[in-house]
Amino acid sequence: MNEIDSDAVGERIRRSFARQGAMHTLGAELTSVSQGVVEIEMPFDEKLTQQHGILHAGVISAALDTACTYSAYTMIEPDVSLLTIEFKVNLMSPGKGERFLFRGEITKPGSTIIVADGRGYALNDGPAKLIASMTSTMMVVRGRKEISG
Amino acid sequence: MNEIDSDAVGERIRRSFARQGAMHTLGAELTSVSQGVVEIEMPFDEKLTQQHGILHAGVISAALDTACTYSAYTMIEPDVSLLTIEFKVNLMSPGKGERFLFRGEITKPGSTIIVADGRGYALNDGPAKLIASMTSTMMVVRGRKEISG
Amino acid sequence: MNEIDSDAVGERIRRSFARQGAMHTLGAELTSVSQGVVEIEMPFDEKLTQQHGILHAGVISAALDTACTYSAYTMIEPDVSLLTIEFKVNLMSPGKGERFLFRGEITKPGSTIIVADGRGYALNDGPAKLIASMTSTMMVVRGRKEISG
Amino acid sequence: MNEIDSDAVGERIRRSFARQGAMHTLGAELTSVSQGVVEIEMPFDEKLTQQHGILHAGVISAALDTACTYSAYTMIEPDVSLLTIEFKVNLMSPGKGERFLFRGEITKPGSTIIVADGRGYALNDGPAKLIASMTSTMMVVRGRKEISG
Repeated sequence: MNEIDSDAVGERIRRSFARQGAMHTLGAELTSVSQGVVEIEMPFDEKLTQQHGILHAGVISAALDTACTYSAYTMIEPDVSLLTIEFKVNLMSPGKGERFLFRGEITKPGSTIIVADGRGYALNDGPAKLIASMTSTMMVVRGRKEISG
Repeated sequence: MNEIDSDAVGERIRRSFARQGAMHTLGAELTSVSQGVVEIEMPFDEKLTQQHGILHAGVISAALDTACTYSAYTMIEPDVSLLTIEFKVNLMSPGKGERFLFRGEITKPGSTIIVADGRGYALNDGPAKLIASMTSTMMVVRGRKEISG
Repeated sequence: MNEIDSDAVGERIRRSFARQGAMHTLGAELTSVSQGVVEIEMPFDEKLTQQHGILHAGVISAALDTACTYSAYTMIEPDVSLLTIEFKVNLMSPGKGERFLFRGEITKPGSTIIVADGRGYALNDGPAKLIASMTSTMMVVRGRKEISG
Repeated sequence: MNEIDSDAVGERIRRSFARQGAMHTLGAELTSVSQGVVEIEMPFDEKLTQQHGILHAGVISAALDTACTYSAYTMIEPDVSLLTIEFKVNLMSPGKGERFLFRGEITKPGSTIIVADGRGYALNDGPAKLIASMTSTMMVVRGRKEISG
């Protein structure tokens, strides 16, 4: 994959990511933008947990949704934007670890509907552990000023 | 529905909710616990937004997952706990509003697998507006000390 | 609910249902069309089973998808049509019974995206037993001649 | 991948597939069984259509569910079986074509819950076209005689 961090698409995604108050609140960083693939990382923090002390499924969903959405941003025209219509998340292992990686990848581009898939991993010593997956469906939005960035 | 706030089940749920770092971070409150139905409320805050200034889908998911999970807690024995296996979220209207209500309701109790459905609403002047729905599948967990509360 | 079987919407749905080769193959009948709610029934048959002799999850999905789709047809203009973008199905009890009822109900109308929810029941002596649920997302399609009926 | 068609696992899967009345009704064949991956093929037939003459989403779901289930059968012990708890299907292109291929692949093995992903393709002249994807969650079932094969 061609790293496109430095070009207009990467710039649009970084600016858009910076406007996501939720990503700031969760301590998430945008760490990689390539054609059709976006990665986000997040350190573990007790402020992100559910009742058993592991990463909350909603936090996992937030990071995966953002990664999936921006993976689709790499494939749309600069004057359109996207809204998530729906997603499904499978939680496959407890969200335990020092740090987490969330990768979103476009599965089906389109002029109206776009589908992306994401996977979340716990990063510790040793190999990354798959903790969650997402399939996300997005709608291409044109000409709505409040949904543009 | 019979309000069970004051009994052991309600107490368990309140203690468990209080341990959810994520709910504290998102500013969510547990506002109602009844047999099979749990409600959570959350005021709008810019720290919870996605790039267009509306509530992040992951924040909506977090609140719905918690509401669905505790709706199931009202139907399980005190010595077992639950883990969310997966959920699907539909985002039906933009998460705009002063305040949000998330209601989880048990759909199918079970000794192994439990299914709950949730709905999220934006609260403003006027009628509540449906913004999202969730279907959540949970697994009953027995005898794992780290997953008990 | 207002039975609308006799009017133009009901007529459109019945003609459209009759064109579904799959519904004929599965032995499904359209049994009720009301504003926002459509029901389909299907007798049990060994030709519809999975390996343990119960109704195949795909057969359940077919009937629920059709019921959800036509529940949405009751709310769209006569010159537009719908395509299912995605759905999720939860299988809550084994599909055992003499006969099955599948009810689709519109949850969120819209000019672009429509969401419907469905439930499937096994009918025997005694109360109907919930066997499955669906949440389905559809796209409104305009001006594509091959997708019109 | 190691073809395991000839061994006990492949034999179990073929016998189980043969008991699926629905697969026979839909004209589906089991065409490949490897470690963690199972493929099913199905010719187009008008008896499998929805109202616009394309493959019914429920038929696609049936084939993907069966492919996903048997991909998981390749990873379980001979004395346990599986039940599908839930799945999500995305329909990405119309099910038009002469023939269809459905591939299920295990994503997360487990002793209690197994997750598999599937993809469906239309086969014509030219490259295979992705028409659908599935994520499926299954439960491992032990010691229930009626759910064993």
